Amino acid sequence: MNTPENRLIQKILGKSSRTNGLRNGLRLGVGDDAALFVSRSGCETILTCDWFLEGTHFLRDRHPAGSVGWKSLARAVSDIAAMGGIPRCFLLSLAIPSELTGRWLDEFLKGLRRVSRKLPCPLVGGDTTRQNRVLINVTVIGEVRSGQALLRSGARAGDIIYVSGRLGEAELGLSMLRSAKAKIRATNPPLRKHLYPEPRIGLGQWLADRRLATAAMDLSDGLSTDLARLCAASNVGATIDESNLDSTAVRHSSVPNWNKRLALALNGGDDYELLFTVPPGKVRGIPSRYRGLKLTAIGQVTRGKGLTLSQRDGSTAAVTPRGWDPFA
Amino acid sequence: MNTPENRLIQKILGKSSRTNGLRNGLRLGVGDDAALFVSRSGCETILTCDWFLEGTHFLRDRHPAGSVGWKSLARAVSDIAAMGGIPRCFLLSLAIPSELTGRWLDEFLKGLRRVSRKLPCPLVGGDTTRQNRVLINVTVIGEVRSGQALLRSGARAGDIIYVSGRLGEAELGLSMLRSAKAKIRATNPPLRKHLYPEPRIGLGQWLADRRLATAAMDLSDGLSTDLARLCAASNVGATIDESNLDSTAVRHSSVPNWNKRLALALNGGDDYELLFTVPPGKVRGIPSRYRGLKLTAIGQVTRGKGLTLSQRDGSTAAVTPRGWDPFA
Repeated sequence: MNTPENRLIQKILGKSSRTNGLRNGLRLGVGDDAALFVSRSGCETILTCDWFLEGTHFLRDRHPAGSVGWKSLARAVSDIAAMGGIPRCFLLSLAIPSELTGRWLDEFLKGLRRVSRKLPCPLVGGDTTRQNRVLINVTVIGEVRSGQALLRSGARAGDIIYVSGRLGEAELGLSMLRSAKAKIRATNPPLRKHLYPEPRIGLGQWLADRRLATAAMDLSDGLSTDLARLCAASNVGATIDESNLDSTAVRHSSVPNWNKRLALALNGGDDYELLFTVPPGKVRGIPSRYRGLKLTAIGQVTRGKGLTLSQRDGSTAAVTPRGWDPFA
Repeated sequence: MNTPENRLIQKILGKSSRTNGLRNGLRLGVGDDAALFVSRSGCETILTCDWFLEGTHFLRDRHPAGSVGWKSLARAVSDIAAMGGIPRCFLLSLAIPSELTGRWLDEFLKGLRRVSRKLPCPLVGGDTTRQNRVLINVTVIGEVRSGQALLRSGARAGDIIYVSGRLGEAELGLSMLRSAKAKIRATNPPLRKHLYPEPRIGLGQWLADRRLATAAMDLSDGLSTDLARLCAASNVGATIDESNLDSTAVRHSSVPNWNKRLALALNGGDDYELLFTVPPGKVRGIPSRYRGLKLTAIGQVTRGKGLTLSQRDGSTAAVTPRGWDPFA
């Protein structure tokens, strides 16, 4: 059928529309009512979905279409990484204005396919409709060995709190993107991190396989908000060490001031790094880098509730969640 | 954490937030990064997602919030029914304006929970954000015995084409809803069918278990569009018999005219009935009703391409897909 909707679906599918039958346990669902998937025995299936909406999660006049495609999948896969799982496939729900079904959609699909191949995590189904703004929802299906999934709820008092990578980088990248005079390319680490985040699948899987972490989650809304969520799920509190946070906070010539860097590290969103807790007895199993990715101990899980910042001068300060909350 | 977003998530979860650990192979994902699901051995997992957007798929000032909740899940589950599967669980992605997080959301959740319990198909995860219009995306995870899934691509020339229920009923219900002077309740079959469709899970599963159907899909966009899709996937054509269509077309005092009823039966969307093809040798296995649900042979699969209407006077007419196409 050569209807407008079908032509769009064919474009989204690209070459993968020629795939037929079950391959790698997957059967394409675009073109049928649904997709089919065979899970591996001894594994649990991980299910997650994420909004990625124009105006809320990206700006059409600022974010390159390729970044919108890349990020819509990468951030959903980050939830799979946070559970210690590997992605298997994804569904794409896309609503776009008619006038964007040409070059914008081509660039969007290029970015989406690039990260889809890299992970790898193939497209197996979805839904398409028209809207006056770009609306994206991505569902990712992943897998983890039974009983090995990393949850938010396992942290215990005394556990050491770790983060991967550099915190606040993506937020700084966003402010660069906003203040740029014209459309800009990903030429520096903060901007690249904001536009093309890399879900920490290898690290999550390694933590799960070795049973090193008692709890884990990905940092999507900012440390102060996400660590508070992990603590609430585990019914514990946490102390963050200011000097340790310094060594993992974003570094860039545009933010020489420590208070600015501290605010970015505490409240900046979109980093998609992993936050995890490790019992003291297992800390020696955590290297300072995992496959080149920096791992930093930033504090400790406490018995009480709430987050505290242990400052350089020996004093303490309460940390209020100031990360992203769409309803705040 | 008692943040605005968390309060909303708690409201959506309701009592189910107290569920912990794996129960019936499901673990709640709202509150963690993702949900966990254990598939039954010997089964394939079915994955499907569906948009349900204010202004496109429902009208906030016309559709009761409870119907929006019911229909957002029911129509996604209909894709599982069309594959011959049973639903296992679903993810809800909800974006709503702040002013609707009170009574509107309560009513929405009431309708959603009613159909969720009825199917049954529990909520296991999702994503929530704020928007100036209501945006809904539902992902349903279902299961079907390996190799038994009903696809669109299996129809062969000579197969008899069947539909369940009455066609065009939901479209008539929508026109009643649009023309009503005030908010109205579901008091008659067409309106009830439009507001609270029932996915044909029992029928789909029965067809798959008995291996009676060569192809199947659900009627969401209208027979003329959906049958053309099934034919395109199977590389065949089809002839629809006008007199047979008469016996399954919507009947209501407001549409005494056959041409109007014919147009509703051919092009009316949102019925969520099943369309399926049966080899001539298996036709005797198809009763006139399955558990009270009318089953009607409406035509035959042909070797050629395209859809033809075999009219009462013996002449034939080409049928053009005139169902719902968001990009037409």
